[in-house]
Amino acid sequence: MEIGIPKIRVDAADKVTGAAKYTGDLEPRDCLVARVVHSTIANGRVVSIDVSEAEKVPGVVRILTCFDVPDIQFPTPGHPWSVEAAHQDVSDRKLLNQRVRVYGDDIAAVVAVDDVAAARAVRAVRVEYEEYPACVTVDDALNSSAPPIHEEKPDNVLVRSALSVGDMTFDEAAASEPDLLRLEKTYETQTVQHCHIEPPVSHAYMAGGKITVVTSTQIPHIVRRVIGQALGIPWGDVRVVKPYIGGGFGNKQDVLYEPLNAWLCQQVGGRCVKLEISREETLANTRVRHAIRFQVEAAVRPDGAVVARRLRADSNQGGYASHGHAIVANAANCFKQLYRDRKALEAQCRTVYTNIATGGAMRGYGIPQADFAAECMADDLAALVGMDPLEFRYLNCMGPDYEDPHTHVKFNSYGLKACMEKGAGFIGWKELREKYRGQTGPVRRGVGMAIFCYKTGVHPISLETASCRMLLNQDGSVQLQMGATEIGQGADTVFIQMAAECTGIPAGRIHIVSAQDTDTAPFDTGAYASRQTYVSGKAVKKTGAVFKRRILDYAAGMLSRPAEALDLRGGEIVDASSGAALLPLGEVAVTAFYSLDKSVHISAEETSHCKENTFASGVCFCEVEVDIPMGKVKVLNIVNVHDSGVLINPKLAEAQVHGGMSMGLGYALGEELIYDGKARPLNPNLLDYKLPTVMDTPKLNALFVEVPDPTGPFGNKALGEPPAIPVAPAVRNAVLHATGVAVDSLPLTPQKLVERFTQAGLI
Amino acid sequence: MEIGIPKIRVDAADKVTGAAKYTGDLEPRDCLVARVVHSTIANGRVVSIDVSEAEKVPGVVRILTCFDVPDIQFPTPGHPWSVEAAHQDVSDRKLLNQRVRVYGDDIAAVVAVDDVAAARAVRAVRVEYEEYPACVTVDDALNSSAPPIHEEKPDNVLVRSALSVGDMTFDEAAASEPDLLRLEKTYETQTVQHCHIEPPVSHAYMAGGKITVVTSTQIPHIVRRVIGQALGIPWGDVRVVKPYIGGGFGNKQDVLYEPLNAWLCQQVGGRCVKLEISREETLANTRVRHAIRFQVEAAVRPDGAVVARRLRADSNQGGYASHGHAIVANAANCFKQLYRDRKALEAQCRTVYTNIATGGAMRGYGIPQADFAAECMADDLAALVGMDPLEFRYLNCMGPDYEDPHTHVKFNSYGLKACMEKGAGFIGWKELREKYRGQTGPVRRGVGMAIFCYKTGVHPISLETASCRMLLNQDGSVQLQMGATEIGQGADTVFIQMAAECTGIPAGRIHIVSAQDTDTAPFDTGAYASRQTYVSGKAVKKTGAVFKRRILDYAAGMLSRPAEALDLRGGEIVDASSGAALLPLGEVAVTAFYSLDKSVHISAEETSHCKENTFASGVCFCEVEVDIPMGKVKVLNIVNVHDSGVLINPKLAEAQVHGGMSMGLGYALGEELIYDGKARPLNPNLLDYKLPTVMDTPKLNALFVEVPDPTGPFGNKALGEPPAIPVAPAVRNAVLHATGVAVDSLPLTPQKLVERFTQAGLI
Repeated sequence: MEIGIPKIRVDAADKVTGAAKYTGDLEPRDCLVARVVHSTIANGRVVSIDVSEAEKVPGVVRILTCFDVPDIQFPTPGHPWSVEAAHQDVSDRKLLNQRVRVYGDDIAAVVAVDDVAAARAVRAVRVEYEEYPACVTVDDALNSSAPPIHEEKPDNVLVRSALSVGDMTFDEAAASEPDLLRLEKTYETQTVQHCHIEPPVSHAYMAGGKITVVTSTQIPHIVRRVIGQALGIPWGDVRVVKPYIGGGFGNKQDVLYEPLNAWLCQQVGGRCVKLEISREETLANTRVRHAIRFQVEAAVRPDGAVVARRLRADSNQGGYASHGHAIVANAANCFKQLYRDRKALEAQCRTVYTNIATGGAMRGYGIPQADFAAECMADDLAALVGMDPLEFRYLNCMGPDYEDPHTHVKFNSYGLKACMEKGAGFIGWKELREKYRGQTGPVRRGVGMAIFCYKTGVHPISLETASCRMLLNQDGSVQLQMGATEIGQGADTVFIQMAAECTGIPAGRIHIVSAQDTDTAPFDTGAYASRQTYVSGKAVKKTGAVFKRRILDYAAGMLSRPAEALDLRGGEIVDASSGAALLPLGEVAVTAFYSLDKSVHISAEETSHCKENTFASGVCFCEVEVDIPMGKVKVLNIVNVHDSGVLINPKLAEAQVHGGMSMGLGYALGEELIYDGKARPLNPNLLDYKLPTVMDTPKLNALFVEVPDPTGPFGNKALGEPPAIPVAPAVRNAVLHATGVAVDSLPLTPQKLVERFTQAGLI
Repeated sequence: MEIGIPKIRVDAADKVTGAAKYTGDLEPRDCLVARVVHSTIANGRVVSIDVSEAEKVPGVVRILTCFDVPDIQFPTPGHPWSVEAAHQDVSDRKLLNQRVRVYGDDIAAVVAVDDVAAARAVRAVRVEYEEYPACVTVDDALNSSAPPIHEEKPDNVLVRSALSVGDMTFDEAAASEPDLLRLEKTYETQTVQHCHIEPPVSHAYMAGGKITVVTSTQIPHIVRRVIGQALGIPWGDVRVVKPYIGGGFGNKQDVLYEPLNAWLCQQVGGRCVKLEISREETLANTRVRHAIRFQVEAAVRPDGAVVARRLRADSNQGGYASHGHAIVANAANCFKQLYRDRKALEAQCRTVYTNIATGGAMRGYGIPQADFAAECMADDLAALVGMDPLEFRYLNCMGPDYEDPHTHVKFNSYGLKACMEKGAGFIGWKELREKYRGQTGPVRRGVGMAIFCYKTGVHPISLETASCRMLLNQDGSVQLQMGATEIGQGADTVFIQMAAECTGIPAGRIHIVSAQDTDTAPFDTGAYASRQTYVSGKAVKKTGAVFKRRILDYAAGMLSRPAEALDLRGGEIVDASSGAALLPLGEVAVTAFYSLDKSVHISAEETSHCKENTFASGVCFCEVEVDIPMGKVKVLNIVNVHDSGVLINPKLAEAQVHGGMSMGLGYALGEELIYDGKARPLNPNLLDYKLPTVMDTPKLNALFVEVPDPTGPFGNKALGEPPAIPVAPAVRNAVLHATGVAVDSLPLTPQKLVERFTQAGLI
């Protein structure tokens, strides 16, 4: 058994000692350096660019502007792609943009012999703009009298979507029973950024008739496709190499600067060009988590049963479409999939272009925002009917038989209520809810909770496909080559465990090819949507079965026994029925290579097209202490309990949950990108953008309810994004419990809390 | 049709512009530098090494000596490997040798932060030796009273081999007819070196639990195996990467310095260490072509029919076994396979350890030496019976029905006599033989010829196995991944043409993965034995068939037609019978990737175990002008005519012949590594070692007789090594024709010619 073992991650030693190679470690010695000239306005048009002074800077090789780029608009989001135009991503930017839509938009680039020359030249570029009023908020954009941010659209709405469940409208449902209680609220989430350790970095060179881009990405095969699209060259003429990466969290599920880097390389005759984005550039102008405003109404029976909800969600898209068209629609699903509306659910969503940083994919893809709204609302409804929030959830949350009426995704395994029980027991829910009732004084304590539900991968909304290749080495060890990517989450380690499980070859004998090189790596869309252990895991399982069969077929010839009578266990060919060892795998391998009778280099490569999905779920419980006059929230105890099916590696699962909880705490309590009225970011650096550090982080507890999922390749389901989802509403609900004050927007900063506590008369 | 097209090589532009990456281009910025301390005696033992002064040199990281290395002897030759101990290569060296057997033997190594520090430290190392008399020649070694060079052997003979054909002994055959004429001669060849442009260079680092060695080699998969053996670690823990290489010619078919580099890397904690060998080190102590002395006897009828030959060959092995045990045995085959001995052929061969540079693989693997002897003898026999040398060969050379009685290798296609006719016509043989008869004066002209025969790959002596992988890109282009290596010969280009031919996808849409990375490359033993277009070509053909079938299967689903009714031609799916275009391949590809119905990443990977072989053959004709008093030979006209089956790429075939002819002219006229009495090389540099330059090279003419070979994957057979074989004896025979003087040892330097002409009374 290799599944369920808390194996130390295979890259641990290399990452600690520095042997692990990242993009920046791999750039060649004579690499040119590119820097981007960013717009200093957020909305407008570049009228002219004067590069005459910049070109005089010693060491400058080439300066290119938005007037030089190909007239090709391309899409950046890391979606699988579709052959149907209607399902393709929005192509709304060029390599460099003359029409500026974000402060820091890319308008020109300098290529120089070193970073100093490039930086000096960037400063010497003179730009003349035609400036339009900037839209910071959704309301700004909807009410603007200025031309739309994307002129080809009639207004600033990128996309509208709606969903409804039940035969009635919300209004009909709300009027259908006499005693229904009504709640109407607005919940708002803020703009945050991923803050991965390693900012975007790549280098590009031409050789072998193609352009190679080495880049820090979650999605090398998609980067390949988008570079092809952006440059207007065949996709096969592009090669993308992904080494180890320093985090992504969705920001590297967008194809941000690779196309520009590739094009700059083309413009200097194919010489290697490096393009490294600074922290400031990353915060100002890569991707962010959408700020979403949820205007919600609910009708609930006095016993707490939810009858109907209505939701209007407006998502702040920023300047470009990116993933935006999909995210707020996904957010609405959170309402649909978490609670039963006995009569009606209505949702209307708008994704609205503004001039702040572009919203893209970020861990949870709209669900952390929606879960904040849905779970604040759950506590607010529980309060409305005078019910314990845990009981409210037991009454209303989806049960094991739930199937999404639109996508038909199901709980193929269900552990949500068990998670709630386990977490409630851990935190001491009943005792604390009782103990903290009726507190007075400036420092008060409370306990809160929030549940979530999350699908595993993107089927059936989009394509789920993954390939895997295995090669037998002469010593009986295995090369495991995945298209799926290690992005810090431990994917390499769990793929090795999976391969070991399904081949019978010990994990220690399986070498993973960690880097993806699109020239030789199997295809996989990459790391996002909590899909890899599920979708790519199926590819491992399918390939492993073929690989094992080929090994047993060869061994059968050596042993003159039928292959069906053999098995591979612990790296030995054994008698399938007695388990008696017959032949070490190494002997089969070396014979297969070097036999003069029959030489075969045993390998297997298979595609798994995944047409299944399943819901993962879970809960966060949180105990806080609130210093009311100081507006300070201290997390005393916190636990996430996850229903993610079988854990491939409990140690890595726990680490994944820890990371998500930390991200959730930052979302709850401090992180926010702030803009001035001209949509200029005021805190695009890690001094002013308040990312929690280890000093701010309490002990993080991660528990699991392991219900094997029959559709998971090894009983497993999503765990990548879920841990970040329920933390912020659990903290908010704990503050509500402690103080009686419902704070309905994130983050719960001291300034905001003091304002709200003052309004509530606590100060 | 993609076969037979003179396509420009796919790496031409990159190699001209510098975009092509070689090992030295790829070393990381912070690489440590290793240098080897070489012995200053050729035979003896290191008593002690004092590194105390060397360790004081600033920048020295680590100094390691022959007293530090693992007690493991390992084999260096690039043979496929055998699971049977009796067929394995000789393991007779350690990473660093305490027992010194060659001047320049590796006895210690310095690792430092840069090359200057490493070089200074090497000079500061003090070594105390116990010195034995050095053996320069085979006779020295056979007659030496000193202990054997390899103490575990009873004498200095590495291996003895013998072969005989016919029911009689030579003596019986020579006495069996009354009128036989007898010839007894000694022919000798000299020690030469490959002189590839790029000396051996590698760098090694540890990551991912394994050691990676990037190296300039012909045989990456074999390097992997030998490093595993030399370091005593599992072969799967070794990764070898082969970029473009600057020539090999067999010297990089030995695993020379990669194991030492890997071990040095281990000793500095896995930091990257670079080991670059200088030209001097390369000439003194890598590998050379064996000097072989052939003592031959023949009995021939007055009509020129050869009745019997006897051959004693002694090969100067140098200090270590390397490929030596196989080479002189192969040389003897040349006698067997070129001419019919009507009653008997006897050969006895010895490979003798001496203290000069180790003999290894070099283009032709013993055959250029043997062909010199056999073809000098042919002319000398023709002279003996008063016959035209061409007529002598027509009478005696093997015909199309020849089958080697031992290996059963056959002429599956035969063009030898046609080559002779074509070459004789080109050079004007009849006219010139007549015209140059009876010359006098100091400057005379002559015309000579030599034929050869060469097998294709190593079956059945050793294993022939190769794999290939093809991947379909979204744009309908293909990734072609070979285990076989591009070593400057144009392999990448011909593999692309082959893949195009057997898939129906245009060559321009096939991208080859030129570099081999043993972690992901299909297995192949590598570039040697003129095997790749034949053996690895079969892998392309087999894989291409599977790949094409998978594409047609997918297209069949799209078109709702049976796959058998479809074909792939010119990158289009067509109706197999009418040829009508039905669907572009790009559409099939993009659908296969992104179909929501059935996503498949179409690929194929197959092993071809080759159990066939076939003889290639050909001839060189050469017209020379000899300045007798000056001892100078000027080549006026020269042509090689090759029977190599179908030419995959006539342009590259011609280039291959040109290179071989140039190498043959150097062998004939100038190249020789010279040793003093202590076995110290006197000319290990390209000033004193007389490699011909473009200034020394006449116009080289390459002609072909294209008889399709039924066993070749595309009708092709060996062409890699053959061009170098017949040139030297053709030049010698032309000098014989011009002057009447038979020079029986190589090279034909002015000094030697003046001596011989003086002896002959011409001066």
